[in-house]
Amino acid sequence: MHRSKERPADRSITPPAPPASSAPSAPSAPSGSSDFLQLNIVEAPAGRRSDWLARELRRAIADGRLPVGSRLPATRVLAAELRVSRGVITEAYQRLTEDGQLAGRRRGGTVVVAAPVTATAGATASSTEMSTARAPARGTASSTASSTDAAPSVHRDRPATPFAAPPGPEIFDELRTAPARIDLSPGVPDLSAFPRTAWLRAERAVLAGLASTELGYGDPRGTPALRLAVADWLARNRGIRADPDEVLIVSGTAQALGLIAQVLHRDGIRETAVEDPGSLGAQQHLRHWQQATPPVPVDEYGIRVDALRASGARAVLLTPAHQFPTGVVLDGGRRRELMRWAADGGLIIEDDYDAEHRYDRAPAPALRSLLADQVCYAGSISKLLAPALRVGWVLAPPRYRTALVDAKRFADLGNAALPQLVLARLMESGELERRLRLLRRRHRQRRDAMIAAIRAQLPGATVHGAAAGLHLTITFPPGVCRGSDTDLAAAALARGVKVQPLSWHRQIPAAPGLVLGYAARTPGEITEGVAVLGEALKGG
Amino acid sequence: MHRSKERPADRSITPPAPPASSAPSAPSAPSGSSDFLQLNIVEAPAGRRSDWLARELRRAIADGRLPVGSRLPATRVLAAELRVSRGVITEAYQRLTEDGQLAGRRRGGTVVVAAPVTATAGATASSTEMSTARAPARGTASSTASSTDAAPSVHRDRPATPFAAPPGPEIFDELRTAPARIDLSPGVPDLSAFPRTAWLRAERAVLAGLASTELGYGDPRGTPALRLAVADWLARNRGIRADPDEVLIVSGTAQALGLIAQVLHRDGIRETAVEDPGSLGAQQHLRHWQQATPPVPVDEYGIRVDALRASGARAVLLTPAHQFPTGVVLDGGRRRELMRWAADGGLIIEDDYDAEHRYDRAPAPALRSLLADQVCYAGSISKLLAPALRVGWVLAPPRYRTALVDAKRFADLGNAALPQLVLARLMESGELERRLRLLRRRHRQRRDAMIAAIRAQLPGATVHGAAAGLHLTITFPPGVCRGSDTDLAAAALARGVKVQPLSWHRQIPAAPGLVLGYAARTPGEITEGVAVLGEALKGG
Repeated sequence: MHRSKERPADRSITPPAPPASSAPSAPSAPSGSSDFLQLNIVEAPAGRRSDWLARELRRAIADGRLPVGSRLPATRVLAAELRVSRGVITEAYQRLTEDGQLAGRRRGGTVVVAAPVTATAGATASSTEMSTARAPARGTASSTASSTDAAPSVHRDRPATPFAAPPGPEIFDELRTAPARIDLSPGVPDLSAFPRTAWLRAERAVLAGLASTELGYGDPRGTPALRLAVADWLARNRGIRADPDEVLIVSGTAQALGLIAQVLHRDGIRETAVEDPGSLGAQQHLRHWQQATPPVPVDEYGIRVDALRASGARAVLLTPAHQFPTGVVLDGGRRRELMRWAADGGLIIEDDYDAEHRYDRAPAPALRSLLADQVCYAGSISKLLAPALRVGWVLAPPRYRTALVDAKRFADLGNAALPQLVLARLMESGELERRLRLLRRRHRQRRDAMIAAIRAQLPGATVHGAAAGLHLTITFPPGVCRGSDTDLAAAALARGVKVQPLSWHRQIPAAPGLVLGYAARTPGEITEGVAVLGEALKGG
Repeated sequence: MHRSKERPADRSITPPAPPASSAPSAPSAPSGSSDFLQLNIVEAPAGRRSDWLARELRRAIADGRLPVGSRLPATRVLAAELRVSRGVITEAYQRLTEDGQLAGRRRGGTVVVAAPVTATAGATASSTEMSTARAPARGTASSTASSTDAAPSVHRDRPATPFAAPPGPEIFDELRTAPARIDLSPGVPDLSAFPRTAWLRAERAVLAGLASTELGYGDPRGTPALRLAVADWLARNRGIRADPDEVLIVSGTAQALGLIAQVLHRDGIRETAVEDPGSLGAQQHLRHWQQATPPVPVDEYGIRVDALRASGARAVLLTPAHQFPTGVVLDGGRRRELMRWAADGGLIIEDDYDAEHRYDRAPAPALRSLLADQVCYAGSISKLLAPALRVGWVLAPPRYRTALVDAKRFADLGNAALPQLVLARLMESGELERRLRLLRRRHRQRRDAMIAAIRAQLPGATVHGAAAGLHLTITFPPGVCRGSDTDLAAAALARGVKVQPLSWHRQIPAAPGLVLGYAARTPGEITEGVAVLGEALKGG
């Protein structure tokens, strides 16, 4: 499916269109293949060759191998090379002509006249509609080398880099699709370690043992098997004792926040205090769901509970095990203060996003383990296996449980069953814990590589929150970072390295900084990426 | 992990704290163990003894063996008993102190100061909460034979059968979990025909070709591969020409309705007219999302467009290809009337839930194919493969596209990637069309079996909407059905057969009837189930 990724990363080297006279049986091309785009007819499903060719052409236009203006081989030539009837080629060309990507120019032959906007940067002026802006196939973006190109606009008319304006609702899509050589965005574990074989094995077992009725509509709370596996996981790893019936399976923490916000809103709570600095993404989700997000400062002990109390907010979103983005672990005294605040009626939304990834010792137990009636706990598989699985879980305080199940029902009737059942097997077989141990070792090496690189390349920077997680944060003392941290991030992206400016995650302005993910990158990439940051910092 | 559950339930029997003077080498305790909490150091993983001890302490506090106020052994004493260095004990105590569960009291030693709330049974009043009502494992419900048992109440305190009160938000969960011998609920295809082997084969290929980055966060609109496959599918099967970029992948039609309702609400539209009779489930979803659902009558030609116009609603939810539940196909004249209504600014939400399942001829093209600017089209895989996959798609009118993508982003950041990629392969390989042909043959036999059984067992009933779909509807002339149709459905359930009363799907009262699914049952089950309906009708 993703063969194109194995091709050279430098998309600017476009293979020249073959001369129209290229002999059908040129010795260099095996039978049924063409040098043009390295097409090989054996890859085409029988009877669907036009579909296949149209798809190959679209892909080549999308990733810049066929830039606007390039001429396609004559149908007769390509048909002879691929040993198919000329109608197959004509049909495929016709499809793309109907799409508006190709045009027949009589004597000039068939020419590429339009490309999806995200593909070749700056090729077309995007209109305001997303329909004209085709995002590149996932996975190609980060391997695309054209470093100084501006980031593509994904949906709306937005400036050419994700850093040119205050972040809007599409900011993380814009950052994700911005081409970069080395992606140091936070929030993703080592995806190359995804246990593909174990996943497939578990899926085979699930499919073999599945009752037909399990393929019908199900419990909106999730499958009993996964809810049990999650309850066991939380007992073993997070000190939480929960009955499986208390577990609500959701589509990741993003959905958890949306559902919780809806329930709070219906309960008359319109404000959820957030840590500052704190996750911009989480704030965007809360705000979308009509929760105001007053900021409460975080210091070296965690959230300032006195300031939380002073804010008057009745709910707060916290990341106590490893504060995002500073990495502070909530200290014992603050925990006790927070418990008192909650006992007085405050609701804590505990976002336990990466607590299992603690490097020095076992993570602190979740707040939920101490105060089930006042803590709404949210966790997910995103940092343990992969965000693309879109599976998470919520433990709500008893008074919100029914309302939260209703919210999930009316969101989507519950998560898909098969991935839940596969995941349950991986969790119950110990596979997930084995993987977590492997990840911890690997992530730790990567963290160490990043810290070493920062010491060497960014000597003025202070490192925060490196005891756990998948990312760390650096701040710069006055005078080191001449512009804003968004300028620095933009300069880094122009040099091919993707990072998040700390100011994105601040409501209260403070020292500039960067949030740097290390878990998904090799030590070599990390060293190189941080060196580029050093250059960007000097280059200004 | 749940070892503690095997202990006596009476948590008031707390082991006494050991006397501070207990001799390090007391003969009763084997080497490396302590009477305190029956600790045995051999259970501790080498090098992680502090972790182990901290976990044991937390567990003991959680389950009440160490109640608040109890004093822990001095570090020196416990270290000697367990034959570990004193630092191991100090470190473990420190952890729990940081958690806020222990506190050092100088001369008083180390004392438990806080315990998790959920631990000791009876500490919290749970009562009417869902946590006390565990739903049966999926797949067991329909095979459970205890026919006269009342349906379990799933979440709230509700009457013992789904038919004893007007349907609330959990009604479909209640019906699903109600035990029955033969389930004739509508809305589910033949799940025993799910292509498990083809699914697994496709998943293997997907996992083999997957780029790691595809396991990260992705495009909220869905994977490019599935959006392309859906665009192709709609072109082949529903006469719709859409660019893949227009396709939004969602978690089934339920989510589609929710997202559309949110977008309409933000656009100032607070009313979506619905067909009457029309799907109760769809109405519940719209109402949850703050859309009023004024009813518009359906006659033998489909929705009465004159009544729609008179209602003043600016949006309408329609099932034109096979009206739910009556099965009427929207007639040509009505289509034209509807087009005029839409051209005047009306918005059509086209729920194309089972159009592909047409038995007599090719289904009528979707309304979307005629009027893309005024039709928001929603389809799903639920009736083609399985509802448990939770995959559907929406084609929005251009003016709502960006808002709908935002709604999906803030709902859940987009569907899970793997099932999308598997599905794309099944759609592009022709597997799904092969399966649809197989299903059509099989469903047709089942439909014929049901019609024959109705003729034989329910001679007074009129059959509606049998030309397509997975269900049919019967109505009874005056005098045939003595009570209400919910009474009849309750009587059938008491005899082990599950059906939906037509009145659930009516806002405007009219003749009693039943909605009967046939696709998921064998002809033998159908014949038997309808015979039971005949008995229930006579038995009253």
